[in-house]
Amino acid sequence: MSGGLVLVLGGARSGKSRFAEAEVERRPAPWAYVATAEARDAEMEARIAHHRARRSVGWETHDAPLDLAGLLAKLPPEQPVLVDCLTLWLTNHLLAEHDLSTEGAVLEQALAARRGLTVCVANEVGFGIVPDNALARRFRDAAGLLNQRLARSARRVVLVVAGLPLIVKDETP
Amino acid sequence: MSGGLVLVLGGARSGKSRFAEAEVERRPAPWAYVATAEARDAEMEARIAHHRARRSVGWETHDAPLDLAGLLAKLPPEQPVLVDCLTLWLTNHLLAEHDLSTEGAVLEQALAARRGLTVCVANEVGFGIVPDNALARRFRDAAGLLNQRLARSARRVVLVVAGLPLIVKDETP
Amino acid sequence: MSGGLVLVLGGARSGKSRFAEAEVERRPAPWAYVATAEARDAEMEARIAHHRARRSVGWETHDAPLDLAGLLAKLPPEQPVLVDCLTLWLTNHLLAEHDLSTEGAVLEQALAARRGLTVCVANEVGFGIVPDNALARRFRDAAGLLNQRLARSARRVVLVVAGLPLIVKDETP
Repeated sequence: MSGGLVLVLGGARSGKSRFAEAEVERRPAPWAYVATAEARDAEMEARIAHHRARRSVGWETHDAPLDLAGLLAKLPPEQPVLVDCLTLWLTNHLLAEHDLSTEGAVLEQALAARRGLTVCVANEVGFGIVPDNALARRFRDAAGLLNQRLARSARRVVLVVAGLPLIVKDETP
Repeated sequence: MSGGLVLVLGGARSGKSRFAEAEVERRPAPWAYVATAEARDAEMEARIAHHRARRSVGWETHDAPLDLAGLLAKLPPEQPVLVDCLTLWLTNHLLAEHDLSTEGAVLEQALAARRGLTVCVANEVGFGIVPDNALARRFRDAAGLLNQRLARSARRVVLVVAGLPLIVKDETP
Repeated sequence: MSGGLVLVLGGARSGKSRFAEAEVERRPAPWAYVATAEARDAEMEARIAHHRARRSVGWETHDAPLDLAGLLAKLPPEQPVLVDCLTLWLTNHLLAEHDLSTEGAVLEQALAARRGLTVCVANEVGFGIVPDNALARRFRDAAGLLNQRLARSARRVVLVVAGLPLIVKDETP
């Protein structure tokens, strides 16, 4: 079974997290679950609790709201890893006023350095009307550029629609 | 020709209704058209009239803004049915403050009980920026979960893009 | 190498322009780049400059914020052309209060009259929550209808996701 990067894209409530978990669980446990969410309000807390309750035993949970590259470097290089999700991680960096292009480049290097499977979940956020709000437009641009960047080096890119995968790229030998 | 559930997803003005109508019209008439729209304003009335004018003879129109399961149970079990669309039906239940998860489960059972073809149209609404508005976020979540639920039991799932089908799932024997 | 219309759809920052440029660059230069953007503010100016800087030599740039059909008729009929993008062209007509359906029909005829390759880039804007704003809803409807119209006569329709193509239609012999 091969390592490399698998990018799982999808809309809100498209079933992308569940699909990504199942991909990782096909490898031998233990699996690392890297959460990027920060529970800023009750709605987000409920969502995090819901995701956590669904995962089976065999998962080790880590938090990386900002230093995702640093965390990935500390995990065993062969361990299967799920990062859920890049969109919240990017939001955290946007709110911290970091340079999003630099953060993307650092993340790309950290992902390339892993030997085991890394499955990254990200939202597709650019298929609507241009947002009124300038911050939302900046975020939408940054999210699209990050998805493009990671898709280039990914072994597999999947768009999840209603819980089902549309295969966008598959270079699995 | 086989029965079962066909789920037709797509964005606004993607041609999903027209695609779904053509799928149903490949079976022998009469076909049941189940409208879920409530004409709350002139914009919606115009849209309903436009859809109705386009349909050919052979269609019997029924209205089911809320009790879609009840209506499906009354139709001849072998009759080809088009439900257009689930997104408006879900909106009606949201505005009526019903439990959307329960409604989804009831609908799933009603669809499973049919022997003939049922084609359901639904909007894909989760590919944009997170809405500011809490009600819109709840709706977006519920619509995504309903699409996932029905996609699991569907024989075929199609994403319509610019009037053309991307096949997401096809278990037609 | 065949001519005809290639429609490249995608979300914001999906890599659709870059993908479309590469399609055109597979033909012999010179290529015509038809820009539809009007630099109404600094954000838009920066975006136009960014796109222009990326293109290699061999491109001839033309501007057609409104009269795209007229411009296409003046270009050599065999020259490979990139139109980037239809969404801004449609926005310009919306703001000028033109009839969008008529404009779509005129464009369709102009595209059909070309012998060489024409690659048109357009945004997919209908996969989000219904916009609050009536103008945004009108625009979303018109953009969806234009995409459907051109997709019918296109030889190839591609949905770009994270820089990668999902083939929606391909009638290349």
